[in-house]
Amino acid sequence: MISKIRRLTKKVRKPNFPDFYHQPGTIPGTLIIDEDAEAPTIVLFDYNQTNFIRKQIATPEECLNYLDTESVSWVDVQGLGNQDILQRLGKVFELHPLVLEDVVNMGERPKIEDYEDQLLIIARMVVPKETTCGFYSEQVSFVLGKHYLLTVQEEPEHDCFDSVRMRIDKGKGIIRKNGADYLAYALLDAIIDGFFPVLELYGERIEELEEEVILKPTPQTLQQIYQIRQELLQLRRSIWPQRDAINALIRDSSDLISEEVRIYLRDCYDHTVQVMDMVETYRELASGLMDVYLSAVSNKMNEIMKLLTVVSAIFIPLTFVAGVYGMNFNPDKSPYNMPELNWYWGYPVCLALMVAIAVSLLILFWRRGWLANFSSIKHD
Amino acid sequence: MISKIRRLTKKVRKPNFPDFYHQPGTIPGTLIIDEDAEAPTIVLFDYNQTNFIRKQIATPEECLNYLDTESVSWVDVQGLGNQDILQRLGKVFELHPLVLEDVVNMGERPKIEDYEDQLLIIARMVVPKETTCGFYSEQVSFVLGKHYLLTVQEEPEHDCFDSVRMRIDKGKGIIRKNGADYLAYALLDAIIDGFFPVLELYGERIEELEEEVILKPTPQTLQQIYQIRQELLQLRRSIWPQRDAINALIRDSSDLISEEVRIYLRDCYDHTVQVMDMVETYRELASGLMDVYLSAVSNKMNEIMKLLTVVSAIFIPLTFVAGVYGMNFNPDKSPYNMPELNWYWGYPVCLALMVAIAVSLLILFWRRGWLANFSSIKHD
Amino acid sequence: MISKIRRLTKKVRKPNFPDFYHQPGTIPGTLIIDEDAEAPTIVLFDYNQTNFIRKQIATPEECLNYLDTESVSWVDVQGLGNQDILQRLGKVFELHPLVLEDVVNMGERPKIEDYEDQLLIIARMVVPKETTCGFYSEQVSFVLGKHYLLTVQEEPEHDCFDSVRMRIDKGKGIIRKNGADYLAYALLDAIIDGFFPVLELYGERIEELEEEVILKPTPQTLQQIYQIRQELLQLRRSIWPQRDAINALIRDSSDLISEEVRIYLRDCYDHTVQVMDMVETYRELASGLMDVYLSAVSNKMNEIMKLLTVVSAIFIPLTFVAGVYGMNFNPDKSPYNMPELNWYWGYPVCLALMVAIAVSLLILFWRRGWLANFSSIKHD
Amino acid sequence: MISKIRRLTKKVRKPNFPDFYHQPGTIPGTLIIDEDAEAPTIVLFDYNQTNFIRKQIATPEECLNYLDTESVSWVDVQGLGNQDILQRLGKVFELHPLVLEDVVNMGERPKIEDYEDQLLIIARMVVPKETTCGFYSEQVSFVLGKHYLLTVQEEPEHDCFDSVRMRIDKGKGIIRKNGADYLAYALLDAIIDGFFPVLELYGERIEELEEEVILKPTPQTLQQIYQIRQELLQLRRSIWPQRDAINALIRDSSDLISEEVRIYLRDCYDHTVQVMDMVETYRELASGLMDVYLSAVSNKMNEIMKLLTVVSAIFIPLTFVAGVYGMNFNPDKSPYNMPELNWYWGYPVCLALMVAIAVSLLILFWRRGWLANFSSIKHD
Amino acid sequence: MISKIRRLTKKVRKPNFPDFYHQPGTIPGTLIIDEDAEAPTIVLFDYNQTNFIRKQIATPEECLNYLDTESVSWVDVQGLGNQDILQRLGKVFELHPLVLEDVVNMGERPKIEDYEDQLLIIARMVVPKETTCGFYSEQVSFVLGKHYLLTVQEEPEHDCFDSVRMRIDKGKGIIRKNGADYLAYALLDAIIDGFFPVLELYGERIEELEEEVILKPTPQTLQQIYQIRQELLQLRRSIWPQRDAINALIRDSSDLISEEVRIYLRDCYDHTVQVMDMVETYRELASGLMDVYLSAVSNKMNEIMKLLTVVSAIFIPLTFVAGVYGMNFNPDKSPYNMPELNWYWGYPVCLALMVAIAVSLLILFWRRGWLANFSSIKHD
Repeated sequence: MISKIRRLTKKVRKPNFPDFYHQPGTIPGTLIIDEDAEAPTIVLFDYNQTNFIRKQIATPEECLNYLDTESVSWVDVQGLGNQDILQRLGKVFELHPLVLEDVVNMGERPKIEDYEDQLLIIARMVVPKETTCGFYSEQVSFVLGKHYLLTVQEEPEHDCFDSVRMRIDKGKGIIRKNGADYLAYALLDAIIDGFFPVLELYGERIEELEEEVILKPTPQTLQQIYQIRQELLQLRRSIWPQRDAINALIRDSSDLISEEVRIYLRDCYDHTVQVMDMVETYRELASGLMDVYLSAVSNKMNEIMKLLTVVSAIFIPLTFVAGVYGMNFNPDKSPYNMPELNWYWGYPVCLALMVAIAVSLLILFWRRGWLANFSSIKHD
Repeated sequence: MISKIRRLTKKVRKPNFPDFYHQPGTIPGTLIIDEDAEAPTIVLFDYNQTNFIRKQIATPEECLNYLDTESVSWVDVQGLGNQDILQRLGKVFELHPLVLEDVVNMGERPKIEDYEDQLLIIARMVVPKETTCGFYSEQVSFVLGKHYLLTVQEEPEHDCFDSVRMRIDKGKGIIRKNGADYLAYALLDAIIDGFFPVLELYGERIEELEEEVILKPTPQTLQQIYQIRQELLQLRRSIWPQRDAINALIRDSSDLISEEVRIYLRDCYDHTVQVMDMVETYRELASGLMDVYLSAVSNKMNEIMKLLTVVSAIFIPLTFVAGVYGMNFNPDKSPYNMPELNWYWGYPVCLALMVAIAVSLLILFWRRGWLANFSSIKHD
Repeated sequence: MISKIRRLTKKVRKPNFPDFYHQPGTIPGTLIIDEDAEAPTIVLFDYNQTNFIRKQIATPEECLNYLDTESVSWVDVQGLGNQDILQRLGKVFELHPLVLEDVVNMGERPKIEDYEDQLLIIARMVVPKETTCGFYSEQVSFVLGKHYLLTVQEEPEHDCFDSVRMRIDKGKGIIRKNGADYLAYALLDAIIDGFFPVLELYGERIEELEEEVILKPTPQTLQQIYQIRQELLQLRRSIWPQRDAINALIRDSSDLISEEVRIYLRDCYDHTVQVMDMVETYRELASGLMDVYLSAVSNKMNEIMKLLTVVSAIFIPLTFVAGVYGMNFNPDKSPYNMPELNWYWGYPVCLALMVAIAVSLLILFWRRGWLANFSSIKHD
Repeated sequence: MISKIRRLTKKVRKPNFPDFYHQPGTIPGTLIIDEDAEAPTIVLFDYNQTNFIRKQIATPEECLNYLDTESVSWVDVQGLGNQDILQRLGKVFELHPLVLEDVVNMGERPKIEDYEDQLLIIARMVVPKETTCGFYSEQVSFVLGKHYLLTVQEEPEHDCFDSVRMRIDKGKGIIRKNGADYLAYALLDAIIDGFFPVLELYGERIEELEEEVILKPTPQTLQQIYQIRQELLQLRRSIWPQRDAINALIRDSSDLISEEVRIYLRDCYDHTVQVMDMVETYRELASGLMDVYLSAVSNKMNEIMKLLTVVSAIFIPLTFVAGVYGMNFNPDKSPYNMPELNWYWGYPVCLALMVAIAVSLLILFWRRGWLANFSSIKHD
Repeated sequence: MISKIRRLTKKVRKPNFPDFYHQPGTIPGTLIIDEDAEAPTIVLFDYNQTNFIRKQIATPEECLNYLDTESVSWVDVQGLGNQDILQRLGKVFELHPLVLEDVVNMGERPKIEDYEDQLLIIARMVVPKETTCGFYSEQVSFVLGKHYLLTVQEEPEHDCFDSVRMRIDKGKGIIRKNGADYLAYALLDAIIDGFFPVLELYGERIEELEEEVILKPTPQTLQQIYQIRQELLQLRRSIWPQRDAINALIRDSSDLISEEVRIYLRDCYDHTVQVMDMVETYRELASGLMDVYLSAVSNKMNEIMKLLTVVSAIFIPLTFVAGVYGMNFNPDKSPYNMPELNWYWGYPVCLALMVAIAVSLLILFWRRGWLANFSSIKHD
């Protein structure tokens, strides 16, 4: 096999960049298979208003019996680790080579494409991470036919389709009364709704950072703001083309989508716009946070400098006075040579002078409000 | 009941984010009811040019007698705390499941949607807070039919429809001579006009901050600027889609809106654009304030550093001179060892030298204008 | 009277915000009259190629004789302080209630609106202030009919129509040969041309600030830059919708505007674009000035810190040396205890050491160029 | 004569603003003549594939013989100092008053306008200054007729048409075989090509500043960056409308432009886009330079502060130690009163202590890398 | 030869600007030949499904036999150093003079142009540098005819067409079954795919800088960020017009492109958008890095100032205390003159006082967290 797998970023924690891309000059239609990936598991759902079958199948060819029946067939492929199976899948569903390439190769932009009797939809699903703030991002491809829907997911874990599976299983809602187009809508809707919990986490994190950035800004705060901006940038890249794709789906003239489902898709489109809105809002908030951070750091510098200035301005003159009376001019040689040293009240007067200087400077600083703020310099 | 209520932000003071959203995978058309919310109160207005009825009704079914008459029926629902009543409301008005979902679920974007013989309008109303600067934001949904208008508000308090109710009641203006479409316009217009007092408050606050930021910038100032930017961001998110919705309403081909009302809507559209203009202007002013804040903090740092430098530059050399004559070289051993200590005028000359140094440095600083500004470092 | 007058900003110097707005919930078409304002003066011009009448009239009804004649009638209303007269004016010209509202209520956005046999044009006029930099901004409304033009100005002072009045009076140019549409063009053109002198002032102020910001940046400079940005923002808000309005006027299908006048309007449109261009240019310059200001303040801080560092770095080591020989170790107890104090050349060597340290540090700083710049720290 | 000349900026070095503008209220079509300007020189070219005439003419009327012949007549007017000649020129070419106004009045935006049998093209030409970086900017107007082309330039010096004149003269290229439209194209192309050498200078200057800003940023650097941004802003204002004008020329339905010349204009359009691209790139580079400058200044401040901190942190503790042993507690009164002063090794141990403190602090700073960088603080 | 070669930037390392441009006033269609460049090598491929010829040819005329046959002829010209050959090439392919100019002259923007029976495509190819981060950028021109494709590259080295050559050679994929349009697609696709490895390098570099900028920001970091922004700006300028060109190619009505190839081009377009997406993302990341850098530098300054302040605030008061007891007031003259000096516990009490002051200040600073951070000031 000619094609080679390249990963843009070896480190897993940065989900910013497409993981795979075409080696320049590969033949169009080439499948980029990460042979380390798990072999695909294929689950077949076949249902109509009355009947319901759900089974895991071993070979793509087993689908053939179901595809042309009136009942809706949903073939759900998870994992992309075996080229042979994917090729055979392409043959079973009579996929155009470019469709198969798009379905199999990760890192595509969300889009729809119309191939006569099939509709290719590429979407991107996000799932929040359990432990830390962040999310997994995964490509989901849909191939919608007259009576069937093929979905291909990058990895077997983390999908947000369980509620849809349950609705088919239990016959909840109107899903069993509708065709494959409604199923595609229901899955797309689940994908879009999956953005909200992820965004909720960012909303909470931004709120936390808002307090932190004003009360005790640290370099870690800075790093986190940058990190959030980076991740929101990625969310934005996922959701923008998705909106265009769903909009295209609504306007598409293909008769694979019924009029009624288009109304539902309009609802789904509204949610997509809402997600975009939130992403943009969070992005503006995060970039405002950066400004606030910079200002807060400057403020803290001011406080530090004020402390230094107050301490220096008070003690440097005092030290000078002490230095003067530490001079060794010889009082014996002349009545003008430091007669203070021999005065009866010399030392007390000198101390009183120092106290007077210190107090008047303190009053000066206090009236300028420089002293009031030191209590506000907190842990850094 | 399957659907669950999730709140994006627990803290009430942050009105930035939609409070509710669909749990991923809920069935489309699911109503998200916050059972803690107050049960809806339903008020029915029925009027034509001569007659006028206003009564609170207990069950949605009581409306049925009024909906099909020629007179205009306005059913005003406030509060969303009871699912059963809302479901029955949907049945009475023959709402599409998605319409009912949009009406009931908060956090939708303003929009209009055309359902054959009904027009759904989602708007967002803001009401200024009494005590502090800020506002409540609430979704208002309109379902416009041939002879009726259904409005649904999130909460019973804070609406800005009183003047419209009064105009219907007293028969003021032309409202009683017109149909349900004019009523919808009048309410929308009241919503848009409700933005102005809120914006007025921001205008005043920005003016106050303008002075504060130049005269005595504090970290609190910074926090307030950030807060204002955040709230204006939210206002912007409310008003932009509203403009699009009203524009769509003007261009809409639906015959539920008469030509004459379209002319009035054009006026309403102008006001919306004016609100947007003001929001954008305030946003630019607020972001300019941030720049000014940063510069003002830098300026203050300059003043502090100048004070430190002046104090240090004057006293450090003097202290050095005092240090020199504090040295203990033995004058007895050599005529070159600190003969000054035994001079007759040694001490006075030394003091005079110190005064000369200090005065010449002060003159130097004064001519550079560094001394003139200390009076301007005010309370911080 | 129901409607109440609200002013967004009490302070006159801030011309940023619309002065008046609708109290939420007022009936559409309500006139907002500031009863403190001056009563309107109405001047009627009636002319054709041969005849010319100019007279001040007391009641709007006096116009009636002139409106339907072939000659052009220009009714020029200045001041908005009397509701009764304005209502009667509306009746005389058969104005739609919304037109009358727009004409009378200040703070509208520039726009055109087409009402069958009338064209409403809202424009905004600026007049430079005599004493300080700044401008008055005033709304001018045009109602263009077949043979008449009604103009309504907010205040009697400061208009820029004198040259047009003079051209009508003296029969200069082609104004007397043309209809009401040409008159409307001529007035619009005068309004647009009125922006140039205002912009000229800003150009000069920005140039002055450019020098100031680099030579001696002060907090006042900062305040002025902010002020200019604010005022340019307001100019921008005035001119942008004006451009759209004039463009709409050119493209409008109304037969109230003749083809020839459209060619003249195209010229007027070009000037509007030129004004916008200049406003945008000045805005970019002013925002560039802010960057320069920030950098200049940082530069000055560098100079101050350098001075402090030079002074400290030179005198602190010297003071230390002096401190060492001020110690009281007893030379009698041991030959190792400060024998320098009893040396013959002890004190001169010590002084020489100090001079050597100071000179070598000075040379070091001089070679790094730190000393050369102190002459450039000027008055602040 | 009514119109008056106003100059926005008296200082010649700032080419940012239109030099002239209409005094508000002047009659449309008024010519603004700077009577100090040089009187126009008029050069007539008349050529076809075989013949070629080039002569300077004194009165516009001399052109009349050539305009209607089949051969191409190019009337090249340079300088705008005589109103009478310009008026007669308008009569000879039968110019619409607004065309004459646009041609004569400087400071118009580039544009095209279609007047039945004439096409008005306003373009802006830039010529690099010989001595310093910068450029002259000059308006060139074209009036294109069936067999003639009138060009009007602001000043006689600095045009970039010599190569075109030479090509006509020598019969090079295909210019003699084509009509007036090709001539207009050739001149426009020369104008656009004239932007490249100007941009080349800015490219070089930016490269120089890139090095300067990182190695030794001074306030002069800042001023130069600001200057470049300002001049690029002006270039941008010249080239953007030019692009729109040329694009309009390509799409224009006028039959004064032949299909073949449109192909050439497409090429000219490409060059215009390329110029715009370069201007935008340079603008982004220049604004990036500002960021770099700010950061570089902060970096230098860090270095200065580090030096101060290192010097202070080392010598202040040492001075303290010296101060301790300069105290005068009486060792005779108590064995606890400064017995060190009488120790045999007192002074050497004290010196050793000081050296130990200094060395350990130096090691600390050295390991933090603070010492390594002082060699990099260069001349400022 | 008239045309002259000008280079905008002499230094090779800056690939930001077009290397060549027209001397103002050159005749359109003039070829700008860099006579130092290598003479072109011409390689001819001629193939159909069964046959395949590949040979290097010496004169353009040798192509003539192949151009009109049904088999696909690919004439691949590399290097532009000989004007005569290029002129003859123009004649052989019957190129319009402007096409030849565009093909030969470097620095054009990517675009397509439709010339009846030929399609001109200008593209820009990037190839990563072997040693350092960076890339070579080279113009590739395509002239697509019915059965032939002419490609012209700027330089013989660094192209990314080898895989396509190999596919033709080995008969891999469907390339041999398709026409010249598919070949053009395959080459364009290889060009677009060639951007990914270049972007991968920037992704890695940005990740490295992310760590560096937070852990140890140096002026070199700043320079690198600026460098990356500059290079991404150039990539952006290369890819944006490419997208427009490919989009135009898909929508183009020319029958030189078959329907099937259009589907493949759609895929190529998707990749182009993906490249743009990545470039924009990297640009945002790089510009975010600049903000982080500025903040990190401020943070470091804070740390330095804190150290200075802590050291000064502790030792300056102590030095003052030592200074007081270094004063020479004469205890013999008065019981009030420094009796401490003669106390039995005088010195130990004084030392204890100093320790107490130091410890209490340290505790104060420690509780404010100022001490904890010094360990984090690392090498600079």
